[in-house]
Amino acid sequence: MSSTASTPGSSRSTGSTPDDLLRLRASIDNIDAALIHLLAERFKCTQQVGELKAREGMPPADPTREEAQIARLRDLADQAGLDPTFAEKFLNFVIAEVIHHHEAIAASD
Amino acid sequence: MSSTASTPGSSRSTGSTPDDLLRLRASIDNIDAALIHLLAERFKCTQQVGELKAREGMPPADPTREEAQIARLRDLADQAGLDPTFAEKFLNFVIAEVIHHHEAIAASD
Repeated sequence: MSSTASTPGSSRSTGSTPDDLLRLRASIDNIDAALIHLLAERFKCTQQVGELKAREGMPPADPTREEAQIARLRDLADQAGLDPTFAEKFLNFVIAEVIHHHEAIAASD
Repeated sequence: MSSTASTPGSSRSTGSTPDDLLRLRASIDNIDAALIHLLAERFKCTQQVGELKAREGMPPADPTREEAQIARLRDLADQAGLDPTFAEKFLNFVIAEVIHHHEAIAASD
């Protein structure tokens, strides 16, 4: 990656920000909007799961289910070219928030 | 939510898992697959950003850009019914990984 590294004019600038950077940032912003909307939809589902679990007296966390989710997402990440370790960290991050919500639902019953 | 809480037969069971829970989990699994693929695409973009920044001698982190991203995602989250604080935590989580990648790219140049 370094032989063409400092070719002058390889990316024009708007002020001090190269055009290529602006183009990439616009794509990142589009992807982030999609991620936020998917996360909103995911929490709508887990909210329902939390209510159902509280109703049925089921515990908020389910280690067997979580293990299966992690294994599946690591595989999907690998196929998609995403670091499986990051995918696992991401799922743990989301699940921690979900369990926190479930505990709040259970406590308010 | 509690008066209908223990109505028998309100959700049938497969083994010990209510059907409603299985249905919700199938939706969560679909959403997670979409999230992983979007994150893979996002890291493809940020990988290019990292290479560009290393080439141009730009610092890996950009606090002004990050501030704008956080404000925008908090707004989008609010509109989508997602906790803006969670959206901000999520973006910080992803950006931390991206900066880690950028530092690795800069160090390998």
